This record gives sequence, C-alpha cells and structure tokens, in this order.
Amino acid sequence: MARIQDALSSVLGAPPDQELWIGDDAAVVRPPAGWLVLATDATVAGVHADLSLVGIDDLGWKAVTAAVSDLGAMGARPSQALVTYCLPPKTDVDLLNSGVAAAAAAYRCPVVGGDLSTSAQVVVSVTVVGSVADGPPPVRRSGASPGDVIVVTGPLGRSAAGLRGLREGPSAAAPADLVAAHRRPVARLAEGEVARLAGAHAMMDVSDGLSIDLDRLARASGVGVRLERVPVGPGATLEEALGGGEDYELLVVTPDPDRLEDALVDAGLRPPERLGTCTDRPEERLLEGRPLPRLGWEHALE
Amino acid sequence: MARIQDALSSVLGAPPDQELWIGDDAAVVRPPAGWLVLATDATVAGVHADLSLVGIDDLGWKAVTAAVSDLGAMGARPSQALVTYCLPPKTDVDLLNSGVAAAAAAYRCPVVGGDLSTSAQVVVSVTVVGSVADGPPPVRRSGASPGDVIVVTGPLGRSAAGLRGLREGPSAAAPADLVAAHRRPVARLAEGEVARLAGAHAMMDVSDGLSIDLDRLARASGVGVRLERVPVGPGATLEEALGGGEDYELLVVTPDPDRLEDALVDAGLRPPERLGTCTDRPEERLLEGRPLPRLGWEHALE
Repeated sequence: MARIQDALSSVLGAPPDQELWIGDDAAVVRPPAGWLVLATDATVAGVHADLSLVGIDDLGWKAVTAAVSDLGAMGARPSQALVTYCLPPKTDVDLLNSGVAAAAAAYRCPVVGGDLSTSAQVVVSVTVVGSVADGPPPVRRSGASPGDVIVVTGPLGRSAAGLRGLREGPSAAAPADLVAAHRRPVARLAEGEVARLAGAHAMMDVSDGLSIDLDRLARASGVGVRLERVPVGPGATLEEALGGGEDYELLVVTPDPDRLEDALVDAGLRPPERLGTCTDRPEERLLEGRPLPRLGWEHALE
Repeated sequence: MARIQDALSSVLGAPPDQELWIGDDAAVVRPPAGWLVLATDATVAGVHADLSLVGIDDLGWKAVTAAVSDLGAMGARPSQALVTYCLPPKTDVDLLNSGVAAAAAAYRCPVVGGDLSTSAQVVVSVTVVGSVADGPPPVRRSGASPGDVIVVTGPLGRSAAGLRGLREGPSAAAPADLVAAHRRPVARLAEGEVARLAGAHAMMDVSDGLSIDLDRLARASGVGVRLERVPVGPGATLEEALGGGEDYELLVVTPDPDRLEDALVDAGLRPPERLGTCTDRPEERLLEGRPLPRLGWEHALE
C-alpha cells in the first residue's frame, strides 16, 4: 500500500479503539453482527465517467456511490470501504480524494484501506463491507413472485438528462439540479433498509437502466413484468428513464405496496412510484401493453 | 455486476447453505469470529506485470497473491475475495480466470463477488476479507522493539531473477524454478499465522523490496535496523534480493527467534533466515556495518 496513506490522507478519519485502518498491510476492524454483505465496483474514466464533462472528484463520489448502492439494494448498511486508485501521472489526487471523502462521509462508510498504482487510465475500484443485523435477511433479486407489485424509490432518467445537458455545452445551460443528478447521484441506503424491514420480496438498484435491470431481476426471479407507467424525472425523456441508468434508485418488488409506502413515509422518505406487476409469464416484458424497449448499459467484452 | 458472473464462471464454487455469492447486487456471507481483516490490491499490466513475458493467467494469480499476502502479513486467514476486472476488448478472460481460480483454490479463498468493465489497460483489483479468530491479535508493522531479531521466511530475489531470465529471452534458458518464482509467487499464509501464534512483535510482506519494506517497518516501529546478512535466493543477485520485491516472503520481528523457528519447523515449514536486529537508533539502516542501499519499488504519482 505504498503511499496510498499519503494519497488518501484527506479521506481518513481516526479508527475506533483497537481498530487499525490504512497504513499497515491490512485493515483490522470489528466484525459486524449478522450477515456480512460485500460488494465491489470498478469506475473507469472514459467508460463510467467523461472527465471532460465532470470532475475527478465527481468520479470519486460516483465510484463510492456505485458500490454503496449495491449494499443498499440488499437492504444492508455499509460499514467500511477499501479503494484502489490506478492513476496516470499528474492526476489531481487531492481532488479525487475530496469526492471519495464526501461520499464516505455522506454514507457513513469510512475508507479503511487502499492501494495506489500508476496506470494509463483513471480506474477507481471500491469495495464496500457492510451487514444486515436485524429483521429479514438481505433482499435478493430472485424473490419476486407473480402478483407482486413493482415500485421504484424515485423518478428515473435525471442522471442521463444531466449528462445530455453537459454534452450540449455551456450555452445550453443545463439545469443545475439535473447536472447534480449526473455528477453526484445518491445511493438509497435508508430506502433499502426500510424496504427490507417492510417485507420486500426482491430488490436491486437501477445502475445500468430500468429496462435492463428490471429484466435481470425478472430473470433471476423467473417472473414476467407488466408495467403500466414509468416515472420520468422532470427534465428527462422516457428513453432516458428507461435506459439512462445511474440514477441509483431502487427497484423494489413487494406483495404489499401500501405497507412499503407507509414505512417509507413514516421514515421521512419519498413515497415510492408504482410501475406495475410481476406476472407468471417469465418471457413477458410489457410497458402499457407493448414490448418494453431494451435500453441501457451492458458491459460485455466483445 | 453486469456479466461478471459469466466472465468469472470458472472461478466460482457453490456457496455454503444460506450464503449468496456472485450474481446479485452484493455477496452475503457469514461473518468470521474475531477480528475482520481487510486488504485490497491493484495489479496493472505494464506496471506490475509485463504481459509480453508472462501470461494473463500469471497476472491473475499474482493479483490474488498480492492481496492474500497482505492478510498473511497480519497473521490472518483469508475467507473471501472480490475481484474487479478492467479489460481491453478481446482479452482472454478464460485465461485470466484460470490464474485467479488457481490462486483462490490454493489459498482456500473463494471469489464471492466482482465487477467487470472495459478499459484501455488490464487492471485487476482484488479485495480479500479474512479474520484472526484465536490467539494474539493481528500483527502490525509497528510493534518492533530494540533488541528484537529480524528474520525472513525464505531467501529473497528469486522473482526478480526469474524476470531477468525472461527478459534475456529464450536463448538464455532461464531456470524453470526462477521463472516459476516470478510467474507464480506464493503468499506465506501458514508462516504468518504460525509467527503470530509464536508471539511475533511485527510483520510485513516483502512486496516492494527488502530495503524499502524493512525501512517502512522500522519507521512504523521507531527502531533502527542492523543487518548481518541477506539470504540471497539461488540464482539471484544481492541487488535482486534487496530490491527485487515480489517474493512475498514475510519479514518477521520477534523477541524469541528460537521459539519462532521451532514453531515453523513443527508446522512443517521452512526454518526462517535470520537477518539481524532492531536497534534503538531510529535512523540506523546498516548491512554488515555499511549503509543499507535503498532499492526497490516506490509507487508514487509524480
């Protein structure tokens, strides 16, 4: 972990008594109660973030958000993050750190370890360790049943709309809230935990696009999907809502949407948006009776 | 984690009952007893491995080894690995997998999660989760005291000698055992655990070179270092032993080297090589009475 402690100095807090964070061969922390939940995510400049349009601090924020969001999608709570930085010479590490540190603080998920290397391209890889201690077990993608209701924790497409605004250039004067939705998306941790405790059958985050992510959930559960509507975020298009991804809202499948809505509202969170229902025809993918367009990001090596 | 389960299919085993490995938003595993020990390591083609000389399977082996070795250096045992692959199009993922899978099997550290992205350069980032359940706590770099004896778990420089042989080309006919030391270095997990149980004061792995790594340990502990000898591996030079790194042998500092030697031999492991002692002069770095040359790898962003 050569010099990563220097590189990451602004990200680091003070570990609790007897714990050991960055600076040794490995970090030593207290194990959580209950199930250990682990996720890892790589964020690559030019693939997941265009550094001509967003800052490397935004890339750092997004890298942490993407990994934390995977825990939120299980209804888990993050406790520690580890990061690897692969960076070209002269990268502004302080700026990158500021985004990583802001996200670590926002999600109460301190960075306890890391590694640093030179590379030709900015790659930030984040692993998040967390847990599910009480109530129902972590919520999988595979638990949806026919008749269950599909909801999402917020409107979709705003990140993609913000990116479109940035691409159109300064003269287009993209609305600041859409640009912020692209640069600083927020993982829905509280929503995920509430949904788990409210008996959600299946859950996942919308990172690659609603069409593709919902298809993955439906395949994992062996159900079909019939959508009546898609909540398009203000300023976004239907295509952006279906395929934009990176909103990091949570898709939740529940047998009792009223209970879920009450639980979210009681927790001071936004009421969910109802999309439709799961069906017993595993091949079915319908939106308002027509085939659901397959839009979004598929990361494959061709 | 789009398609990473396909990419990693040959790496994956079947999870124990109720656990969830790759294929959902996050992995769910039982938490270990005792301290949770976490390490992460990035391996970059062109920086940590020359793919014109070694296979991408070797890069995969080394990426897992480097992260596992960080746990070994605390006296911890690994339990799960998460990997991110950032790969250019047309990369031989099956070959990369074969190296990752071989290492995961060798270290009994299954791959339970991962992520996949395209990139311009091969970057494999590995996070290892493990634990220390019984006996003394994880062994830090900072515990060495003046008078303690410094040992290493095996001779040094063989990985660097193997790389030199590969660079000299086929006509040089580098000895197969040296080439193997470079392509498939072995993390000293059993040795680390035995050393912790035998009361080691400080420990770290030799990944960047003896001179630099020993300097880091001495700084963390606030001690000086007086070496009487360096165990140069057969076929290696003194310079390779001091600066080559990547042997992944463990530097162990102990008040009782006889007890450590007995414990290692009793466990069927190689007796350690004694290097010298820690002194009460924090600036001292001597080899046979002369200044210890500062050789090795320092990963910094200039």
